[in-house]
Amino acid sequence: MKKQVYPPPLDIETALTIIDRFLVSEMRKAGRKRLVVGMSGGVDSALSAALAVRALGKENLVAVKMPYKSSSPLSEKHAGLMIDKLCVESVRVDITPMVDGYFEREGKPPLSPFAKGGELQDNVRRGNFMARMRMAVLYDLSAKLDALVLGTGNRSEWLLGYTTLYGDSACALNPIGGLYKTQVYQLAAFAGVPEEIISKPPSADLWPGQNDEGDMGLLYSDADAVFYLSVDEGRAPREVSDILGMPFQKVENILKRMENMEFKRRLPPVAAMPSPQGKNED
Amino acid sequence: MKKQVYPPPLDIETALTIIDRFLVSEMRKAGRKRLVVGMSGGVDSALSAALAVRALGKENLVAVKMPYKSSSPLSEKHAGLMIDKLCVESVRVDITPMVDGYFEREGKPPLSPFAKGGELQDNVRRGNFMARMRMAVLYDLSAKLDALVLGTGNRSEWLLGYTTLYGDSACALNPIGGLYKTQVYQLAAFAGVPEEIISKPPSADLWPGQNDEGDMGLLYSDADAVFYLSVDEGRAPREVSDILGMPFQKVENILKRMENMEFKRRLPPVAAMPSPQGKNED
Repeated sequence: MKKQVYPPPLDIETALTIIDRFLVSEMRKAGRKRLVVGMSGGVDSALSAALAVRALGKENLVAVKMPYKSSSPLSEKHAGLMIDKLCVESVRVDITPMVDGYFEREGKPPLSPFAKGGELQDNVRRGNFMARMRMAVLYDLSAKLDALVLGTGNRSEWLLGYTTLYGDSACALNPIGGLYKTQVYQLAAFAGVPEEIISKPPSADLWPGQNDEGDMGLLYSDADAVFYLSVDEGRAPREVSDILGMPFQKVENILKRMENMEFKRRLPPVAAMPSPQGKNED
Repeated sequence: MKKQVYPPPLDIETALTIIDRFLVSEMRKAGRKRLVVGMSGGVDSALSAALAVRALGKENLVAVKMPYKSSSPLSEKHAGLMIDKLCVESVRVDITPMVDGYFEREGKPPLSPFAKGGELQDNVRRGNFMARMRMAVLYDLSAKLDALVLGTGNRSEWLLGYTTLYGDSACALNPIGGLYKTQVYQLAAFAGVPEEIISKPPSADLWPGQNDEGDMGLLYSDADAVFYLSVDEGRAPREVSDILGMPFQKVENILKRMENMEFKRRLPPVAAMPSPQGKNED
């Protein structure tokens, strides 16, 4: 008997039909024809770009490479591979002047007296700043080109909050936000994303040697299984633990992380004034 | 008989009670004590800062001045006035290196063949970029100081979409997002915001001579009256036009602008995959 996997393998045809329709319909609603996408060299942006080309045509996508001086040259090489494969127009914007223009003033970021972490905290601050610079570049290019910004975040990152708020999570529409990381790999293989992009360890490349799963102390495959059973199937943590044969505390830790990152998944709270009927608005 | 005004004057005591509780409760939920706020020299950020000091104490707010080389010196002077008045710590970060680090490469932004507007479009692109640089600086300082970013956008801007997405609208919590611009003035006068800040024409100061109401071709007082009657009281456009003695087409134009800017008021759409029950998620 075949072992059941969670989430179950994606139905490729259904997923592609949904994503094609989504892209065409959102572009029509917005009254735009073109998209810009930040190409990091990773599997998420490679797949998002491939899906956009499939739905809208290669003439309607501009891929943007935005290296920082310490970015891995391999990342840019992989971005270039995908750009060549898709035959899309591309632009390269070095974000070093923007990032260093700020941090040279800030110096090696002095640590908050309240925070721990030393060099790691420096890296995280710089990494988040880089993600926000890339967002600003993409939005400016989208204005220049009368285009929209294509999102490239997947469902696992979204639920784990492993994104920079107002950085890589910022976009006008997102074709892969409903796919778990494990499903992204599956669809990427089908969509012709080169093997060397698919097979490397996931990394935001925000500092040398960064690795998503090392950062979080968590494998995407474990997080995806827990989220699928908890969020999509609505099962209690104890049951999830039993089904997966995963320690209960580990299930709880994954769900706790999801809860702690809730603020990244909603609009900022506003102090609501009384409505004319004397009741507070939501 | 006194003429009815829309929105009606704010009940100052009620508003302050709601905002105090909101700030205290949101900070507790987030487990943070301190806030950073971008002080532009305008009435919205001056009021937001005053409200934060009132609810949380002056030792828990850091005000950040973020001029660009072409920013009006009067804006910085007004920011300084409010900082002195509140006796809060302040930081000054010149965003010129970040902004010019990008646009020197981009050159004077070449126009999109699809867009109109010449110099105005350049200004809008640069202005949005500036707003996003300020967001990135505020978020970095909030990480450094173990603080949250205080929002300063009002309800009129929110409904009109007169904000930079992922720029000035980005924050962790917003005390004045439920107040119309006309109500901001009322509360600002009560909260001790200096008269010279209250009396100047509203401007994002994103380029010399910019003026919100000139930009939009619309007075806040008109927009606020239309929104109050339409959104808060749920009246039809024809009725709103009758009550205000405002041309129907003008009411429609204001509501149309609100609709067109809906994308700034929600999270980006995601292609939703089928749920385990075979139904699409929301």
